[in-house]
Amino acid sequence: MDIGQLLLGRPLRKRDAGHEEIGSTEGLAALSLDALSSVAYGPEAIAFVLITAGLGAMHYLLPISLALIGLLLLLVLSYSQVIDAYPAGGGAYAVSRANLGTNVSQVAAAALVVDYTLTVAISISAGVEALTSAFPAARPWALVICLAVLAVVTLMNLRGVGESARAFLLPTLVFIVGLLALMAWGFVHPMAPAIHPLPAAQPVPLFFLLTAFAAGCTALTGVEAIANGVPLFREPRQLRAKRTEWLLGGILALMLLGLAVLTIRFSVAPGGAQTMLSKVMVAAVGHSWGYYVVALAITVVLALAANTSFGGLPLLSSILARDGYLPHVFAMRGDRLVFSPGIYVLAAAAALLLIASGGNTQALIPLFAIGVFTGFTLSQTGMVVHWCHARPPHWALRAGLNGLGALATGVATLLFVITKFTEGAWVVVVIIPLLVVLFRGIHRYYDRVNAVLVPGHIPGPVEARPRPMIVVPIEPHLSELTRRALDHALSLSDDVVAVAILLDPESDDDPTEASLRQAWTDWAPPVRLEIIQSEYHSVIRPMIQFIDGLSPKAQQRRVVLIPEFVPDSAYGELLHNQIGTMLASALRRRTDVMIALVPMHVHQEFVPAPAHDAENGT
Amino acid sequence: MDIGQLLLGRPLRKRDAGHEEIGSTEGLAALSLDALSSVAYGPEAIAFVLITAGLGAMHYLLPISLALIGLLLLLVLSYSQVIDAYPAGGGAYAVSRANLGTNVSQVAAAALVVDYTLTVAISISAGVEALTSAFPAARPWALVICLAVLAVVTLMNLRGVGESARAFLLPTLVFIVGLLALMAWGFVHPMAPAIHPLPAAQPVPLFFLLTAFAAGCTALTGVEAIANGVPLFREPRQLRAKRTEWLLGGILALMLLGLAVLTIRFSVAPGGAQTMLSKVMVAAVGHSWGYYVVALAITVVLALAANTSFGGLPLLSSILARDGYLPHVFAMRGDRLVFSPGIYVLAAAAALLLIASGGNTQALIPLFAIGVFTGFTLSQTGMVVHWCHARPPHWALRAGLNGLGALATGVATLLFVITKFTEGAWVVVVIIPLLVVLFRGIHRYYDRVNAVLVPGHIPGPVEARPRPMIVVPIEPHLSELTRRALDHALSLSDDVVAVAILLDPESDDDPTEASLRQAWTDWAPPVRLEIIQSEYHSVIRPMIQFIDGLSPKAQQRRVVLIPEFVPDSAYGELLHNQIGTMLASALRRRTDVMIALVPMHVHQEFVPAPAHDAENGT
Repeated sequence: MDIGQLLLGRPLRKRDAGHEEIGSTEGLAALSLDALSSVAYGPEAIAFVLITAGLGAMHYLLPISLALIGLLLLLVLSYSQVIDAYPAGGGAYAVSRANLGTNVSQVAAAALVVDYTLTVAISISAGVEALTSAFPAARPWALVICLAVLAVVTLMNLRGVGESARAFLLPTLVFIVGLLALMAWGFVHPMAPAIHPLPAAQPVPLFFLLTAFAAGCTALTGVEAIANGVPLFREPRQLRAKRTEWLLGGILALMLLGLAVLTIRFSVAPGGAQTMLSKVMVAAVGHSWGYYVVALAITVVLALAANTSFGGLPLLSSILARDGYLPHVFAMRGDRLVFSPGIYVLAAAAALLLIASGGNTQALIPLFAIGVFTGFTLSQTGMVVHWCHARPPHWALRAGLNGLGALATGVATLLFVITKFTEGAWVVVVIIPLLVVLFRGIHRYYDRVNAVLVPGHIPGPVEARPRPMIVVPIEPHLSELTRRALDHALSLSDDVVAVAILLDPESDDDPTEASLRQAWTDWAPPVRLEIIQSEYHSVIRPMIQFIDGLSPKAQQRRVVLIPEFVPDSAYGELLHNQIGTMLASALRRRTDVMIALVPMHVHQEFVPAPAHDAENGT
Repeated sequence: MDIGQLLLGRPLRKRDAGHEEIGSTEGLAALSLDALSSVAYGPEAIAFVLITAGLGAMHYLLPISLALIGLLLLLVLSYSQVIDAYPAGGGAYAVSRANLGTNVSQVAAAALVVDYTLTVAISISAGVEALTSAFPAARPWALVICLAVLAVVTLMNLRGVGESARAFLLPTLVFIVGLLALMAWGFVHPMAPAIHPLPAAQPVPLFFLLTAFAAGCTALTGVEAIANGVPLFREPRQLRAKRTEWLLGGILALMLLGLAVLTIRFSVAPGGAQTMLSKVMVAAVGHSWGYYVVALAITVVLALAANTSFGGLPLLSSILARDGYLPHVFAMRGDRLVFSPGIYVLAAAAALLLIASGGNTQALIPLFAIGVFTGFTLSQTGMVVHWCHARPPHWALRAGLNGLGALATGVATLLFVITKFTEGAWVVVVIIPLLVVLFRGIHRYYDRVNAVLVPGHIPGPVEARPRPMIVVPIEPHLSELTRRALDHALSLSDDVVAVAILLDPESDDDPTEASLRQAWTDWAPPVRLEIIQSEYHSVIRPMIQFIDGLSPKAQQRRVVLIPEFVPDSAYGELLHNQIGTMLASALRRRTDVMIALVPMHVHQEFVPAPAHDAENGT
């Protein structure tokens, strides 16, 4: 408890949760880091495909990047329209639920879950690769650093991150300005004599280029985030959000273009202990302080990009839980007002991915982009339906634009699945339907529960049952525990029976039926005693048999009152035999038994029973 | 549940547990396998020391074995006297508790716990080494086979082993007769020409020989088992038990002697992929069918020796639990009438030892023998006290004999600790006191609990408390669950208050204070409703605050009645938010709150409340 508070901070009152509203530049920091930081791994994913056809094929990096920039502009245009249509935040789940029905929206939700999880794993591993490129000595510890970063991000999110956008602003600006400046310097400065130009490009098959293009689609992940986060912006919201979306598109396009040109200019090839981006940066400015500043900014921005998913997935899963597609616990906020269960699950899944991939970004790339692009496709398709239904001015043009976006991203999704299927994409192709099956199973369960409970309706009449019959399981050694239990039982009803289970005596200290009966007679409480000689070496089994065997009339009004000794510490819990707990959980499985627990503590002082007073006595 | 029954068998009634009584030969099978099977690793432990001084030093195996045989005869003599004095079974714990007080008996208990655990690990690893000596192809799987054997032995013991002695008879006889016959053949048959005699022995320091002697003491472990098990024998018990003890002494002496002579005759040295015993056997009879039969018998007998500990430790820990030195749960028998918790703990500890040692017997040897010889020393010392108190005829002679035994085993213990300290014996030297500290801590805890409970005495007068005030936490959505809870609450008392905690509405479906109040008025149950607007995003915290804040008079008679939805399956458990369980466990920590659970099931049919009848109405 105390350690938890030390790490996570004291519980927050709800009024502590202020709403900060952001402008366009802050929006870039808060919502577009996932997209911008993709330059750290997207172009490298293209190059990893190209290099298999020889160094000369690296020339194709430029046309492929241009094609990606074309797709990017189409996406930015499409999402500007989403911002227009869904000022309350138009995530793929919300848009497809509104326009395409619950079945399709479940697919969108599953795709988003996969996407958020992979974003965390890939961003962190890419960030650590940027770090180990700059500081090769840290390379053997890459996976450990990945997990440490994940732990820090998780912990910060469990605390609840306040004022995030403003805190993110500085590293975001250093990253954008630094990287662009560094690229600009790379264009103008004279070439180092050691750099030989790439060999001339040989013709390659179209399918090969499509494979490289599909791999590059990972660079476009995250452009949807601004459209999801419209409510975070200051008024005029939609205008500011759209401005941020175009700003993001422009910067990302510039970075992709610059990186492609410089890679070719400096004849950089992927592979080895350094990322391609790091090699380009070194070729441009050497191991100068500028290099280190930008490298660190890349690491921080990637970690912050992972952080964005920690905002997104728990929120999405709380919405899914409210819609009955995930366990209700995902809709519960923790003491720090965050949706803790979603955070825990995301952290665990990302840790698994990092460990399974050994912290290697390129091993995770084949799994990425499918979820994102499925989301793109569904949300654009939903927009087409939206325009056709709503029919505002220029609806046909708008529908056409979104339709083009849906087509392009749909083709890209298919291309990605086909070209990366055997490298790992099949995992996602299997997991998304499994998630949908899970969502539906959970929903069916809640439907059944709701059929029994009929929540939200006025229930039937309340009719007090007859006074219950109280069964008090007692230990064969009479003690203060027994006395307290009988005290409490008699306060609930006059119909009380104490039940003792006797095992074969194993030592002379063990009570026999006769000795227990004698002790009871000496004590003379106003309660009937039943003694059962157990056929088994268990007290639970005969106790349950006794309770099940009560007369049909008593069946309707059984209360089993379990005296429980509650230790002060978890250490103490181990020292008690848990028979009470075992009995209670066996009884929970039965219909129409009320279980009453009477806890008693080691340090408890003896509390004398107060005298009867007038108010009592039905 | 079903898988458990499939593996472990149906629950046994106590009358199913027949007592089998055994004769002298069966006693050998039931109680002396631990001792007899020590020949598989004891002489090898000596040889491992000797070989460090060169091949010539192997000649010292014979005098050291003779010294061990001397100690063995002293022990057999001593334990014959224990059998005379403690016909009810005189384990080191019982003898030292009776004669040396509880403090010393705790040391004996700790030593025995260590001993039993190591016996399991060493017997299994030695058994598997005997197997891989015969079948070298299995060698890479040694550790896996060890753990598999451990799993089988554990499972058999969880089932409860019936008719064990008779089942053990055949492998025991094959082992004894086979090994002795094989040794006899080794004496008489002509030497193979390939065997060169050992080089002549060089003088070595006395301390070196003492080290080797101490290592050999592991061969004497287990000779105490017969004295512990006297009650298992047929009448005349003591006579039969003593006969078995002497039979064991004779056979073990013969085997130790024969093995020493043959090892020297065949110039066998320890080390490599084969055990020394296996090498001697091969030298005597080659890879004949006789070799394989005896090798298999050795493996089986060692596995059965491990099995003996599974009989011993759970029984010992149940006695310790009854004496209040271990958690009471160790005194509880499972469905199959065995002390399951002891079996689980022993299996886990043995598995840890096997994994830590990589299944290598000689790595475990330095830990062994200390526990056993501490037990020997304490039990012999206890016997000296016993004779001096009881003073039967010849008591001085008897006391002298046991005293000599105590002295010899005490010196051997010290010798072992000193010579093996840095090789691992220190672990045991640390663990035994830690176990004693644990025993005492647990005992102190139970003393405190007993001071509160005063069990076994007639408790104070039972005084029915006033009718309780029932607090019913309800969900803000009224449902059948609420109705059932109020029904039950009204059967216990007229003073019922329903408490709803409202969080900030996050969607339009969420009830507000006004809408809930309206629904309650429409429903109109005869129960007061309290609505609390939560400052936190938690319902537990304000609920506890409400219950703690009840008037001092109500404090004495609080019942919190928690309506609980109980799913049909463990899968379903995950889908409920567990608020009820969390509230119950928070309340358990409070004094003087009774917790009443009203379980409701998905499949539950609606049970109409029965009409009030005459018997009810206090």
